[in-house]
Amino acid sequence: MPSNQPIAIFDSGVGGLTVLDQILHRLPAEEFVYFGDTARVPYGSKSSRTIIRFAVEDCRFLMRFDPKMIVVACNTASSFALDTLSAEFDIPVIGVVEPGAVAAVAATRTRRVGVIATQTTVNSGSYPRTIARLDAKVEVFQKAAPLLVPMVEEGRPPDDPVVPLILESYLADLKQAGVDVLVLGCTHYPLLREAIAKVMGPTVTLVDSAHQTAAVVHQTLTKSDLCRGDSQPAGKQHFWCSDNPELFAKIGRRFLSTPIDEVHHADPEIFFEVERL
Amino acid sequence: MPSNQPIAIFDSGVGGLTVLDQILHRLPAEEFVYFGDTARVPYGSKSSRTIIRFAVEDCRFLMRFDPKMIVVACNTASSFALDTLSAEFDIPVIGVVEPGAVAAVAATRTRRVGVIATQTTVNSGSYPRTIARLDAKVEVFQKAAPLLVPMVEEGRPPDDPVVPLILESYLADLKQAGVDVLVLGCTHYPLLREAIAKVMGPTVTLVDSAHQTAAVVHQTLTKSDLCRGDSQPAGKQHFWCSDNPELFAKIGRRFLSTPIDEVHHADPEIFFEVERL
Repeated sequence: MPSNQPIAIFDSGVGGLTVLDQILHRLPAEEFVYFGDTARVPYGSKSSRTIIRFAVEDCRFLMRFDPKMIVVACNTASSFALDTLSAEFDIPVIGVVEPGAVAAVAATRTRRVGVIATQTTVNSGSYPRTIARLDAKVEVFQKAAPLLVPMVEEGRPPDDPVVPLILESYLADLKQAGVDVLVLGCTHYPLLREAIAKVMGPTVTLVDSAHQTAAVVHQTLTKSDLCRGDSQPAGKQHFWCSDNPELFAKIGRRFLSTPIDEVHHADPEIFFEVERL
Repeated sequence: MPSNQPIAIFDSGVGGLTVLDQILHRLPAEEFVYFGDTARVPYGSKSSRTIIRFAVEDCRFLMRFDPKMIVVACNTASSFALDTLSAEFDIPVIGVVEPGAVAAVAATRTRRVGVIATQTTVNSGSYPRTIARLDAKVEVFQKAAPLLVPMVEEGRPPDDPVVPLILESYLADLKQAGVDVLVLGCTHYPLLREAIAKVMGPTVTLVDSAHQTAAVVHQTLTKSDLCRGDSQPAGKQHFWCSDNPELFAKIGRRFLSTPIDEVHHADPEIFFEVERL
């Protein structure tokens, strides 16, 4: 029985739109509700307790739209909140860390994998743990890269000398370690893919979770017979955020190949009301 | 009648500790309650509506300690929320923008003043507006510098080549404009004072609001006869934050010359309860 219910996606801000973009390419008939918690962004420098609380609140808000699935399009929230969310909500909850780890293990030949991510994702150990579960012989080298998200949001042009210098400062150790795969462990980083590829060189494969996450979303829906048929017309995307909708639309356009027509504001009072239910 | 009530200070995070530091030097007998909203930091990239809401919530929390004054130790919150806070709370509310503007106007000889600040502080126009009120003939040149706060929090050493390159990218236009005073319009920036001075050269005076804000706090308390006498023993400082207290203490130490012994967590449930009163 195909389902017309929407797929809910959330992120701390606009970065998760890179994940939505990949899912949209694969499942154009689906309807989506995206929530970006732009009033409280970023999550990647905050504690596990705070991140779990925010993620639960975000999902409680999204449950109003009666979704058939929740996609946690944020590496930091995926690293900490997945178990809590799966226990609380009675629909499939899919994160981005496991798909990224699967893609990395499939791609490495030397069994030396690098991961760049936010400080909190690195501290969580979610990538090394997941990769070890898939193949205990893969060595993982991590590096926190706190300046990359604000640099992407600032929109520096690729030929700005600041971009390669900051990237070099984070990637030098990973190059030194001889990794042949680098996981872009934050949804903002695909926007720096070209510049990162230049620093890492042609022998290193870059893995971004978005593509693989879209495949997992597709498989999970198919398995439960919840896919909207491809013969149906293209689905709608609904955008919500907790701070300024205009700013979300403006910055979000850089992350998504589909136009963002309208963004709604999740009124914080309603938002916290939901938290108390 | 000298008052033993504490002085309340808040900021989006740890940056406001540079302001507390200056006030402490001037008024060592006073007691302080500091709140850093580390769960929702930063404010400087968010909208006025969200910043005003956060600032009101922060102050409602601080009112529990029955303070005699509120210091808004955050340029972004000072730029937007001062009128709202002054209307809502029946004690003096002092921000950091006006003191910084006063110091800049006093220091300039060429009447060309530069300001670096967060994107939202720049957008607010608070510095140009305040400076124009003090001396309409002063020209103000602003530049948003979004990477500086995460760079300070990341703790890169001063000899890291990334630091001067990022500073050059923001300051080139202001140097070009021939300013003789540069306002450090964010409480994090004093930690970059030396590196900024090197880029701007010896003929440019750097103004940070903290020193001047401490003078205004002192004057205001004296005028209302609310100062604790200097003969009294040194006052205590109480620290609160909305995210991880250990992390606050660890990063905060770089911003404050007094030790941070204990940091309390403002439980978000209590926090939002307060919001509803």
